[in-house]
Parts: sequence; structure tokens; C-alpha cells
Amino acid sequence: MCEANAYLLKEGKEELVLEDISLLRPEKDEIYLQNIFGEQKRIRARVKEMNLIDHRILLEESQPDL
Amino acid sequence: MCEANAYLLKEGKEELVLEDISLLRPEKDEIYLQNIFGEQKRIRARVKEMNLIDHRILLEESQPDL
Repeated sequence: MCEANAYLLKEGKEELVLEDISLLRPEKDEIYLQNIFGEQKRIRARVKEMNLIDHRILLEESQPDL
Repeated sequence: MCEANAYLLKEGKEELVLEDISLLRPEKDEIYLQNIFGEQKRIRARVKEMNLIDHRILLEESQPDL
């Protein structure tokens, strides 16, 4: 089981977005996530860091002005 | 072993960039990669897709004009 969990960094706190992610695809200012159960999510964020040893994908909210 | 291999999409072909990646971090128009052997690479690219079942991270070259 090599899936990772995605967390969204929001006001300094990490919020679990989706567990057991099998697929991640950036789309414009969104991230498309899909997990091994077929659940799908799109969130307005960008990848901040991925740690595959800790199975963690850290996302942060997109800043459309930058 | 949950690491993934990174490939760079270049003129329609996929070129292996680094194997057994443990850490990926986007930095401006570059991607910082580190693998379980401590090898590090920075390449001018962005994440196109990550498939954690297939252990594949697909990158594509940054287009600074966009």
C-alpha cells in the first residue's frame, strides 16, 4: 500500500483532504485527487511538498494573485 | 518501498530523471527531488501527473512564458 494522504495547509493548520490517494493531477489552479476507493476531489490548491516515505502530500491554497 | 520514479516528458518522450524518490518539492519554476539514496536534483519542470499505484511521477518542462 503505497498511497498517500493529502493535507491542506490552511492558516497554519493541516486539514486532511483525502486518504489513500492513488492519482494526483494539477489542473490550472486546482488539484485533482483520486483515491483507491474511487473517490475524487478537486481542490483549489497547489502542491507544497510530497513525502513518499511518510505517505504525505501537503497542499496549500492557491493564491491566484501571485 | 513506496518511492516513485520521476520521468520528464520531453518532445513526446518520457526520460527517466530520478528513481526511488522520497521527497518532491516545487520551488518557483523548478522541482526539487530527493531519493532514498540521498541523491538530489532540481529540474526546471512542473508536475503533470503522479500515479502512486504505478510509482510514477510525470513531469513536464516549465513554460516560463505562460
